[in-house]
Formats: sequence, C-alpha cells, structure tokens
Amino acid sequence: VKIGVFDSGIGGLTVLSALMKIAPGHDYLYLGDTARVPYGTRSATTVVRYSLSVASQLALEDVNCIVVACNTASTYALAALETACAPLGIDVIGVIKPGVTAALNAYTQGAIVVLGTEGTIRGKAYQHALMAARPNLDVTGIACPLFVPLAEEGWTDGEIPAAVAERYLRPILTQSGVVILGCTHYPLLIPVLNQVLPNATLIDSATATAHVVAQRFGKQERPGSISFQVTDHIDRFCRVGTRFLGLEPTQVTWVDLVAPSGTFAEVLSTYMEQSSS
Amino acid sequence: VKIGVFDSGIGGLTVLSALMKIAPGHDYLYLGDTARVPYGTRSATTVVRYSLSVASQLALEDVNCIVVACNTASTYALAALETACAPLGIDVIGVIKPGVTAALNAYTQGAIVVLGTEGTIRGKAYQHALMAARPNLDVTGIACPLFVPLAEEGWTDGEIPAAVAERYLRPILTQSGVVILGCTHYPLLIPVLNQVLPNATLIDSATATAHVVAQRFGKQERPGSISFQVTDHIDRFCRVGTRFLGLEPTQVTWVDLVAPSGTFAEVLSTYMEQSSS
Repeated sequence: VKIGVFDSGIGGLTVLSALMKIAPGHDYLYLGDTARVPYGTRSATTVVRYSLSVASQLALEDVNCIVVACNTASTYALAALETACAPLGIDVIGVIKPGVTAALNAYTQGAIVVLGTEGTIRGKAYQHALMAARPNLDVTGIACPLFVPLAEEGWTDGEIPAAVAERYLRPILTQSGVVILGCTHYPLLIPVLNQVLPNATLIDSATATAHVVAQRFGKQERPGSISFQVTDHIDRFCRVGTRFLGLEPTQVTWVDLVAPSGTFAEVLSTYMEQSSS
Repeated sequence: VKIGVFDSGIGGLTVLSALMKIAPGHDYLYLGDTARVPYGTRSATTVVRYSLSVASQLALEDVNCIVVACNTASTYALAALETACAPLGIDVIGVIKPGVTAALNAYTQGAIVVLGTEGTIRGKAYQHALMAARPNLDVTGIACPLFVPLAEEGWTDGEIPAAVAERYLRPILTQSGVVILGCTHYPLLIPVLNQVLPNATLIDSATATAHVVAQRFGKQERPGSISFQVTDHIDRFCRVGTRFLGLEPTQVTWVDLVAPSGTFAEVLSTYMEQSSS
C-alpha cells in the first residue's frame, strides 16, 4: 500500500518513525510543507487551504491513504480532506482520534490534559472528541509554543526545557491522570515531561496513529520504500529531521505546491464560501 | 510620503514603532505576511519569492518607499526588491545597512557580534557589510532561534530568557564591544541582554533604520496615518502585536497575496533561472 504522510514540516517524522516500526513494509511518501511551516499559529482558514494543497499533491502521487500527521491540520482540516479524498478512494487517517482512543484506554481517574500548539488547543478537536466519548470528563488544554523550537534546537534535556515545561505545566505538576502529547514535536521531550509530571501517564498520538494504520493495512514482510518531498530547502530538513526520524532522511526532493486541483479545489471553494458567509 | 513597511509577521512592528517616534507624520502601511511567517528558517529562494509577492502588493497600494523591516528579507531579497522597485520610482530601505552604520559609529575596539535568525546569520549580509567597511574587523554571527518565540510569548524577563540568552551567548558573555540585534523581535529582550552582556553596547537596527527614513523623508507636523495588512488572522496579530508596537494595531485588514506581477514577476523569473542554473 502506498501511504502519504502529510505534515506541516519536520515534526511528522516522529509519526513516520512510529509507522516504520509498527506498520512496516508499506511505501511511505512523506510530504513536509516546510515553506509554510508552522501551521500551529495560523487561522483555521489558512490551515484548511494549506492542507488541501498538500493533499492535492499527494493525490497526484497516487497514494492509497493519507496520514495527517500534523495535529493542527487534523484539528481543522480533517473533514475537508475526507470530503475531497472520498471520491478518489483515498483513506484519510488523522492523529487525533487514535490519540483520543489511546488516552481513554489508559484513563482510570483524574483529569485528561491535552498539550499542543496554539491552533490545536484553540481548535478544541481533542477536547470535543474526549467529551463526546465521556461527557463528564475533566479535560484541559494547554498550549506550549516553546516546545517546538526547543525540540528543533535539540534542547531536550537539562535546565532550560525543564524550566519551560514547569512554567507551562504549573497547574498540573502534581496531578495524576493522562496527558496527551498533541503535537508531533513533543515525543522528543518525553524524558523531561516524565521528570516534570512524575504522576502522569503520557499518551503519544504518533504511536497510537501507527497502530491504527497497522490494523487497517497490516504489516508486510517486504522492505517497503520511504521517500520525502519538501516545499523548502532540503538541507535543513535533513539536518534537523535526523533527530525526529532517528536516521537521516534520504531520497528527498523539492516540490512546488500549486493551487489545489479537482475535488480539492471544489472543497476549498465551498469552505471559503461558508467561512466568509 | 506613503511608506510601506514590510515584515514576515509581527516582529517588524518594533521598526514601525521606531518610525512613528523618529519619523512621524508620514502615512505608514504595515504589511505582515503572517500566513507564511517566519522567514528566518527558510531558504534564500523562498525568502526572495515571498518578499517579491509582498512588495508587489505594497506597490499596488502606491507606496513611495518600502522599508524592509524583516532582517532575513533584507539579507536575501534586498537586491531583487531594488531591481523590481527602481522602474516604479519606489525607494527601498533595508534594516541591515542602517544597523551596520550605527554599529561602526559605536565601535571602538574588540569584536562585533551579530545576533539573528538562522537565515540572517547563514546569509552573512551583516558580516559582509561590516567586513567591507573595515576588512580587519573581528565579526561573529550567532543564530538565536528561541529568542523569537520567547518574545512572542511575552517571556522577556526572569529565569528562562536569561538561561536561553546565556546558552546562546556563552562565547561572548564577558566581552566588551558591539552587539547588533539583527532581528526585529530582539529589542523586546534588551533588558535581559543588557543583564547577560554587561560589557557590550547593543545596537538596535530598528532605531537605526528609522533615523535613515527620517533623514530621507523628514518629519512632518501633520498626524499621518497608520494602517495594517496581514495575510492570516487578524486577532493573533493584534493580540501579540500590541507588545511589539506599544499600542494595539487598529485598521487591520486581511489580504490574499497572489503571485507577483509586473516588474516583480520579471525579477522573480530571472532569479529562479539564475538560482537553478
């Protein structure tokens, strides 16, 4: 099966890394929209527009399935992507539903806290999905914008990330309960988060999503292939991406994203009409 | 005089703030490309392409002058912007030359250090301009990516920004000499930088650029007007921008940047041919 993995930039490589371990043997094409990263601070409209142009490019590559690795894109654009992909027979799998299911499975008592970008937290997709499943659940979202540049700088241990985490997580430092890592960058900070939140159970949406892909498409014995497309320079993607993927990305090509075409253009046009009215 | 102030996002509001104080009475139109911010981690080609599309929009608004407030755009795109603007009679003023002149005026002995984004430091525009003026100068560039999200979060004093600054600036902590703030976000960190670098003289390119504009176009007694265009949502721009401008932006409209037209399209096409050959 040919599986497109779509992310705003480099962070989704943690999802690809989980896919390679948990659902090996498929042909993975990772597209990082590095010319327009990050999606996490952008408006819903902009995230939908960017997501449709990325998915339109993946459809041109004849993928059978698109994994929306970016939490902010999953928050705002999943419905639009499903509508555009359905007539083409392309499956769409976001990271939020798998993360929510894994969190509910791990949950025993106390609160559930979602950590993510400004966009993911403001969009409340995790919060709504959790409350839909268990209406009386105590759910809190905390936006942690500094976590992304800390992960990209490789400052993932020592005094600085601990101080930043303590500042964001001050209201929940001693809480037990479940904490969802609702951003692809955050798995790099798991050691520091375990230290700052000693009583919490951390749920990584990347791993949960990889299990959903393995359930749907199985694992294969064949080696499978992995290739990459990025919309900005390849050298930074490879340099910083190595920390996220666990190995250096190879077979990386640059693509120019043009306006979405076909069903993607139709969905965008409908969305823009609705959001302006 | 109608002056367009172009920035990748919110940071250039420190330049606008300096312009309002030092060169008052003009009609300022600030354009923040918030849908594609930050430019600081992008490739030269992408920065040139984005800069030409922003300037093309400002030209449609009949500005007489474009102040390129973004250091990364000034680093990579100034020549392209000058070439495209010259036939239209639009002046182009970047932040680097004014910053370099101010640094050389303040310089007595020791080293000159430039702080900036990855793109600004890698592009070496400050370093080259300084060395062109004084070939034997000891010039160092230090990229400080965490400074931007710290400024946008408003974490500009206390333990965390001090620890981050000490980590980036470890090689120069006790040095005297001149330190150029080569990113529009960094003036918000001046108190912490003064504390971490007690012997250095800080040079703020924003203020230096405002003096160049005042020299060229004078100050006017009339009140002047200020308006804003952004390419992504207005609410975040106003909320975060208030800290940068010193007052809340009003008269903010959303614009969609289309492909550059006229001389901007011609310059882009020439640039793309040259950079791919």
